[in-house]
Amino acid sequence: MTRFRLIIEYDGRSFMGWQRQDHGPSVQASLERAIQNTLGEAAAVHAAGRTDAGVHARAMVAHVDIARTITAERLVGALNAGVRPDPVSVIACTEIDHEFHARFSCVARHYEYVIVNRRSPLALDKGLAWRVWPELDAAAMHDAAQRLVGRHDFTTFRSAHCQAESPVRTLDRLNVARDGERILIRASARSFLHHQVRSMTGCRGMGGEGKWTADDLGAALMAKDRAALGFNAPPDGLYFIGADY
Amino acid sequence: MTRFRLIIEYDGRSFMGWQRQDHGPSVQASLERAIQNTLGEAAAVHAAGRTDAGVHARAMVAHVDIARTITAERLVGALNAGVRPDPVSVIACTEIDHEFHARFSCVARHYEYVIVNRRSPLALDKGLAWRVWPELDAAAMHDAAQRLVGRHDFTTFRSAHCQAESPVRTLDRLNVARDGERILIRASARSFLHHQVRSMTGCRGMGGEGKWTADDLGAALMAKDRAALGFNAPPDGLYFIGADY
Repeated sequence: MTRFRLIIEYDGRSFMGWQRQDHGPSVQASLERAIQNTLGEAAAVHAAGRTDAGVHARAMVAHVDIARTITAERLVGALNAGVRPDPVSVIACTEIDHEFHARFSCVARHYEYVIVNRRSPLALDKGLAWRVWPELDAAAMHDAAQRLVGRHDFTTFRSAHCQAESPVRTLDRLNVARDGERILIRASARSFLHHQVRSMTGCRGMGGEGKWTADDLGAALMAKDRAALGFNAPPDGLYFIGADY
Repeated sequence: MTRFRLIIEYDGRSFMGWQRQDHGPSVQASLERAIQNTLGEAAAVHAAGRTDAGVHARAMVAHVDIARTITAERLVGALNAGVRPDPVSVIACTEIDHEFHARFSCVARHYEYVIVNRRSPLALDKGLAWRVWPELDAAAMHDAAQRLVGRHDFTTFRSAHCQAESPVRTLDRLNVARDGERILIRASARSFLHHQVRSMTGCRGMGGEGKWTADDLGAALMAKDRAALGFNAPPDGLYFIGADY
């Protein structure tokens, strides 16, 4: 068995999420089927994060064990040929030792949320960003966001279906910046609760409509109450952009 | 009649091109149908450029005359409601005097061509960029491109179906720059020949594979011979990004 570390890009619109499931297509199943069809092996692909339906990845990190003797370069070729026509692309592949585990060895996960801040509907970015109007104040959003950085009980920003034992997480970074009509939100943590990034993005304070101040956002966090939250931002704008080991 | 100037974004993958035609969907027909269905008028929409099938626009400029008394804001609403579900979005609309003509008053047209310079297939940018490998030298491409700037006979870079009377055009700008794994080519001219931007992008010198030097590219231009050209870059990476008046 040789273990390979993969970096994977995918368009989440075509999938029910990363994780293999009975009722619809998944990125994991697409990759595992590609291995079965090209190499004849039933291998399991493990990822750093299990993204939801509609959530994208620019650089999901994963690993897989392959029994057959194969170079990293040929494995990439087999995977990229095998996943077609699914919108999945293995952009890097390296041999790695067996102590590496894409999920359990991961020390930081990085997400980006893309808002297009304009009145008119999205044509080119449909499904790839969240359109928000009225005009957002990225600097005010960034300031408010700093109230969430650090070690907190994130119950307010957690899905009712979250399976994590504890709602306490350490948010290392939550930056908000404007780039033309785009508002980019970058979040980093060792791990996130289910829907945490979408909840933080969707809440009115982060939405920047000025209905919540930074103090209001801090109060929502302290409330530890899911009802104190505005709503989840849609999956369209969320990208898994990297993992550290 | 009130004349309105429109700025329009569209995803070219859904259309046979800008121009209305019998055998398939077009951006023009989508907008004209929206006007018919929401305002009950048979209006013609004129654009600065007639993009080909698969070519996108971030900011196509167009104009339309509307008989009914309507504000620019309500017209945008009617258009964006009426084009659904086509991937077309009117992002700006202003009243303008009748001397303005989106096509004939235009003094400069701006295109961007997006290359993703990597080995692996595109997942998120499929249909929205051209994947090219091996690694490109953007600085060398930019230098070579300068041989094409100025007033020249562009026969080498012209479609066999081009209907322009003269192959002489003045290319004002042809810049090539790298942004991470992306190579962005920006071309500006009062007008372009049919397929000119895709031909210039697709030729081996611009492709940066090092098979052509700047001198070779200059020689291809001087040859005034379509056979001296490599090939057209695909429409996927081409965007109409602006027009000046």
